Amino acid sequence: MKVVIDAFGGDNAPLEIVEGAILALNKHKDLSVILCGKEDEIRKIIGNRTDRIEIVNAQDVITNDDQPTFAIRNKKDSSLVKAYDILKEREDVVGLVSAGSTGAVLAGAIMKIGRIKGISRPALAPILPTKKNTDVIIIDSGANIDCKPINLLHFALMGSAYYSIIYKNQNPRVALLNNGTEREKGNELAKETYPLLEQAPINFIGNKEGRDFMSGDIDVMVSDGFAGNALLKGTEGAVLAVLSILKHSIKRHFFSKIGYLFMKKTFKEVKNRIDILGKHGGSPLLGCKKLIVKNHGSCKRNNILSSIEQTIILYENHLNQKIEEAIAKLTIEEN
Amino acid sequence: MKVVIDAFGGDNAPLEIVEGAILALNKHKDLSVILCGKEDEIRKIIGNRTDRIEIVNAQDVITNDDQPTFAIRNKKDSSLVKAYDILKEREDVVGLVSAGSTGAVLAGAIMKIGRIKGISRPALAPILPTKKNTDVIIIDSGANIDCKPINLLHFALMGSAYYSIIYKNQNPRVALLNNGTEREKGNELAKETYPLLEQAPINFIGNKEGRDFMSGDIDVMVSDGFAGNALLKGTEGAVLAVLSILKHSIKRHFFSKIGYLFMKKTFKEVKNRIDILGKHGGSPLLGCKKLIVKNHGSCKRNNILSSIEQTIILYENHLNQKIEEAIAKLTIEEN
Repeated sequence: MKVVIDAFGGDNAPLEIVEGAILALNKHKDLSVILCGKEDEIRKIIGNRTDRIEIVNAQDVITNDDQPTFAIRNKKDSSLVKAYDILKEREDVVGLVSAGSTGAVLAGAIMKIGRIKGISRPALAPILPTKKNTDVIIIDSGANIDCKPINLLHFALMGSAYYSIIYKNQNPRVALLNNGTEREKGNELAKETYPLLEQAPINFIGNKEGRDFMSGDIDVMVSDGFAGNALLKGTEGAVLAVLSILKHSIKRHFFSKIGYLFMKKTFKEVKNRIDILGKHGGSPLLGCKKLIVKNHGSCKRNNILSSIEQTIILYENHLNQKIEEAIAKLTIEEN
Repeated sequence: MKVVIDAFGGDNAPLEIVEGAILALNKHKDLSVILCGKEDEIRKIIGNRTDRIEIVNAQDVITNDDQPTFAIRNKKDSSLVKAYDILKEREDVVGLVSAGSTGAVLAGAIMKIGRIKGISRPALAPILPTKKNTDVIIIDSGANIDCKPINLLHFALMGSAYYSIIYKNQNPRVALLNNGTEREKGNELAKETYPLLEQAPINFIGNKEGRDFMSGDIDVMVSDGFAGNALLKGTEGAVLAVLSILKHSIKRHFFSKIGYLFMKKTFKEVKNRIDILGKHGGSPLLGCKKLIVKNHGSCKRNNILSSIEQTIILYENHLNQKIEEAIAKLTIEEN
């Protein structure tokens, strides 16, 4: 199986990206990768570990300062555009992994790869931990800022299909993000979306509040990208704030410092548990004709490894076919 | 100064509400309160501590299951409606405190008291801690689910006036909740609101993400009530989740338990610091002709005390007058 990787996307590119690819190659003997980026720099990192690695030279890089659609159209020699061209043209390449500009990854997905038939909008679905030792995904987390009910319906179908594969859970609990749990709650969008989710071929458990997000009672939280982004990043910020407040008050008290020595292991465990970047590395961009996994810009080699492995799992378990089947079951058409 | 209190609103009513009122009376000798609710039950709690307490009998109670506007219109003998009638009719009563149904408190405010001239929508502005030992407010946190740019402009003015009084900070930093910090980011609402906030007589620091909410770099976060509710409750849930994950892994490790003994004080300190209910007790409903403070349904006597004290401070510092002055400075009219 072949995966193409944007070796120059992200804050820690190319070193962490290339090393992540090599970790994946060592673990998966049937895997081969295509690395896009400045060939000489990539070769330096690889050294003689060239087994099952193809390098496609790309001298340019798309940054967060680039206007996404303009960059995809005009930065033809950038590592991301080259990677997308390969994903589009080569049938043997099953997926793409990038830690580059989210906007550019989204623009490239639409402009180069295109949507699955019947899907109105591709969506990002990052994974977060819950206090019950399960994981929860939020879809959409920011790819679609102004949404229609039909978009949220498609997010729900895609999120449910994705979760059922990643967690081997045939009946994930899908909730609609709302400002209250009662059926009639919500803004116009949520109110119009509710009946669509009721009729959809998913396990819809109704409206849930942001408070319930990490409760472990939800597997898939459905939202427009604006509120979803507020929820995701608010959660992220709160987790970091609590840990920082804790750290500071530990520093202030002598006895706490002693206590901390005894608790180091626990703190490390907790930090890993609530690692917002996600042990699964990237967040998939669901709804495109080929598999695309977007990594956090600050990701390290282990996140890249996870993203590549996620791509393998999603391919072997026919994610896109499952999404197409779910769409086919729908009675509601896009208006 | 006189404050009217809905003695039967909230999960811990009437005991915690009445005791909170008595705490306030003991602290503030120039304060007197009117308690609305079942007279006999209230008298039992008060005993002979009747100094500066007036009781107005109300046999009915509005619950979270009541449809708010219907309840305000028809439950004429409920503690909340009686309290609103007193707030409306008696000039010497400067404010109302209730821990009852948020929807009913909002409906009562609109139907019985009315908006400050020029304010398009009253808004809820709860207070949260930040990791820099400051506090941040979010306005609106759920009173207004579908908003127009003019609403968010008014939220910004009211939030800024409120924050400047509570924290004696003449120039609070006002941010617009968005899915990115760049000027052009956001949904239609955020994009149209940005230029209004730039022209407003406030210290507007631009777009901020949910991640920045508890950073300490923002004093007033402006949002529509839907995204604001997702951010507020997501933060709340995340804080609780982290503490619970921490607790569970402490339980699992012997050495952690020893460590915990040394850190008890620290944990208590942290728990208080990030008490989401807020040491300030309630969240004010800003923009009404008289002061209204809404408490969390699960609040205790100390929260009620804080809410009464907040009402006193806001009255003595002429909050509503400051809001009227800010509105008068505006060049933008409601469309």
